[in-house]
Amino acid sequence: MLTVGLDLGGTKVLGVLVDAAGAVLAQDRIATPTTADALIDGLGSLAESLAGGEPIDAVGVGAAGMITLDGAVTYGPNVVAFREGFPLRALLHERVGLPVAVDNDANAAAWGEVVHGAVAGVRDALVITLGTGIGAGIVADGHPYRGAHGYAAEVGHFQVIENGPMCACGVPGHWEAMASGTALGRMAREAAASGRLAAAVELAGGEPQTVRGEHVAEAVRAGDGEALALLTEYAGWVAVGLAGLTNILDPEVIVIGGGLIEMGETLLGPIREAFWRGVEAPTLRERVDIVVASLGVEGGAIGAAAMARDLVT
Amino acid sequence: MLTVGLDLGGTKVLGVLVDAAGAVLAQDRIATPTTADALIDGLGSLAESLAGGEPIDAVGVGAAGMITLDGAVTYGPNVVAFREGFPLRALLHERVGLPVAVDNDANAAAWGEVVHGAVAGVRDALVITLGTGIGAGIVADGHPYRGAHGYAAEVGHFQVIENGPMCACGVPGHWEAMASGTALGRMAREAAASGRLAAAVELAGGEPQTVRGEHVAEAVRAGDGEALALLTEYAGWVAVGLAGLTNILDPEVIVIGGGLIEMGETLLGPIREAFWRGVEAPTLRERVDIVVASLGVEGGAIGAAAMARDLVT
Repeated sequence: MLTVGLDLGGTKVLGVLVDAAGAVLAQDRIATPTTADALIDGLGSLAESLAGGEPIDAVGVGAAGMITLDGAVTYGPNVVAFREGFPLRALLHERVGLPVAVDNDANAAAWGEVVHGAVAGVRDALVITLGTGIGAGIVADGHPYRGAHGYAAEVGHFQVIENGPMCACGVPGHWEAMASGTALGRMAREAAASGRLAAAVELAGGEPQTVRGEHVAEAVRAGDGEALALLTEYAGWVAVGLAGLTNILDPEVIVIGGGLIEMGETLLGPIREAFWRGVEAPTLRERVDIVVASLGVEGGAIGAAAMARDLVT
Repeated sequence: MLTVGLDLGGTKVLGVLVDAAGAVLAQDRIATPTTADALIDGLGSLAESLAGGEPIDAVGVGAAGMITLDGAVTYGPNVVAFREGFPLRALLHERVGLPVAVDNDANAAAWGEVVHGAVAGVRDALVITLGTGIGAGIVADGHPYRGAHGYAAEVGHFQVIENGPMCACGVPGHWEAMASGTALGRMAREAAASGRLAAAVELAGGEPQTVRGEHVAEAVRAGDGEALALLTEYAGWVAVGLAGLTNILDPEVIVIGGGLIEMGETLLGPIREAFWRGVEAPTLRERVDIVVASLGVEGGAIGAAAMARDLVT
């Protein structure tokens, strides 16, 4: 059993060839084509090139956007080739002549973690990606949780603060606007502009407006108290959302991936500490662990390959 | 096929005898016993009395609290007979000698609505009860969504405002603290204390501190602008939560029950209007309807009876 998984983002498509055990046998990437025809042909050619002449059984795609249950794109502003209703699954199926699974990229990454990654075998998990935005996938009772139309798990988009910063979706005060990597950078630059975070500003080259999350992290590791206070404040916003989502979804475990998690315990420690205080009846219920995603940048593609395998087994 | 459903609350137990089609053949209630032994015996006796000598196939209970997948009580402060870990399902099974299903009361009410109520046959629904607090049940892909431990759907408990009013669970700023009937009363009394809401105050007997939600509703129906402004503000808080939950869960339809919904379109209209603005990509996605629950005060018991039926069919 060989399947190809494709992680389709705004700038690049990362593809993997995966065997039944989840081992990555080949990997390649292309720049994301910018027209519909070139996109479908590029995805098909990438799958064929990864297969290298071996017969593959199915292709899976994790795509940036809101994806219907039938694999069409409802909303995908990051991929310029997408238009409203773009029938991605049907067109790629026609191109490759194989079963094709299409889901949201964060859902695919979540599926990868429960099938081959950090929480293999877990049946109820919430998988969060902290990056420019907040991506997420929900696994419920051993299956991807997709909702009535395929749009579930847009967990960055609930209000956590009244009249808060504008979210990328156009609504103020959403969790993504307070807890993404973008939010950490904004918080850091606001603090720097008001004269705080001197250590992080120095690491950024001396200008308050150039401070980013990684400078805060570096200053924390160097023992700077102001940077630690800011990171703890940010971790509190991450925790607020995770606690609310735990009360709503009751996962067995929460998995966090994405660029910010490279900070490791520097960030995870404060998140874990604040998280548990926001969960209902914390002294009575089973502990919900927060762990780090294990599949890294290939996670979405590996998960898409696993979704493809589910089509043919 | 006959089953008994019991809605076990802090002050009373409402029981129904239901046939396979969901028709309520008998109904009765008892005051909630205050010791563990009396509670189990009271539930068993109520079930037997409802059956009236006919053989019943199973008993279902919807109980106020956090209920494990095995029907034990993790947290149930409203029922004094509950202690931590109280094995409600096992003890009642021993008492009645029949299969027994136990779930949270709001989950049972939600199940009732999709099996016999307002959204019969719908496979993905969010059912909300607006009362003293906010109760909720999630139906996902045709099944009750219970989470890893049975605690899912505690949807009142996510932060919607920073440093907001204290929630009954002890965490500030939760949705329940801003969008329950209790919250509407608090908002009304705050407005009245600052000299607004004269019409509602008059309906309440002239004292600002006696204004309740129903006085606001009555003033709105009489055409009072201040009362309408307050109710619209409250509806906005209801909508904020419903929009966030729609982004997270992607239901096909939202069902609202509970005492407040007796206001009908007076309340539902402003909720619907504000709700859609908070949903991601509102111009591109399928509409999510908001409808009124149809089973009324018997909903939890009818849903519990339906859960019992699922044990034996």
